[in-house]
Amino acid sequence: SGPWMCYPGQAFQVPALPGCRPLLKLQCNGSQVPEAVLRDCCQQLADISEWPRCGALYSMLDSMYKEHGVSEGQAGTGAFPSCRREVVKLTAASITAVCRLPIVVDASGDGAYVCKDVAAYPDA
Amino acid sequence: SGPWMCYPGQAFQVPALPGCRPLLKLQCNGSQVPEAVLRDCCQQLADISEWPRCGALYSMLDSMYKEHGVSEGQAGTGAFPSCRREVVKLTAASITAVCRLPIVVDASGDGAYVCKDVAAYPDA
Repeated sequence: SGPWMCYPGQAFQVPALPGCRPLLKLQCNGSQVPEAVLRDCCQQLADISEWPRCGALYSMLDSMYKEHGVSEGQAGTGAFPSCRREVVKLTAASITAVCRLPIVVDASGDGAYVCKDVAAYPDA
Repeated sequence: SGPWMCYPGQAFQVPALPGCRPLLKLQCNGSQVPEAVLRDCCQQLADISEWPRCGALYSMLDSMYKEHGVSEGQAGTGAFPSCRREVVKLTAASITAVCRLPIVVDASGDGAYVCKDVAAYPDA
């Protein structure tokens, strides 16, 4: 079922986390999130192990921006017409915390609930 | 019941959000969070309106660091002995999302679920 990206410590289907895209779009502008949307996203994220979870979220965010390409940056267009990029990336980084799914920070093996690499997604 | 900080759009008791301190400490190193800890924090955060919620989290984070003063920065000491500062501030910024409580981004009135000002807490 689809291709897999396989880096050390990373394995997830691409395009990553289709079920989390509606959650991110709703949350980044402060909309209420239906329980079913939250459940779908958290289930997909739970199916990915602690190591590659943040990589999957990063991949999802990256493809959401890249699919929209040139229109990005113009107000009212792009993947997130009503959210600023700094809010989008912080919101994406917090999805693991919202789902209460821990992640591994890096090679140190330290745990956390927010994806710092996703929060550091490039600004443009 | 204690002093109040009153800026335009801000009103919360200080020290802010005592019930969210244990949540932040547990989450920032990836520990499991007991339901009762989560409930206490989210209840306190729900009692603060959308405008000052992020200010309250910022104030909480700031006082947690300042209470530990000089010891901060030494490994294994300070307010967060086992968490790096960048993870701590991202985790604090996501507490509103974990509690599913919306916030207001700024004077634009835009909504969100993560506190970008908390995520931008100074690095040292």
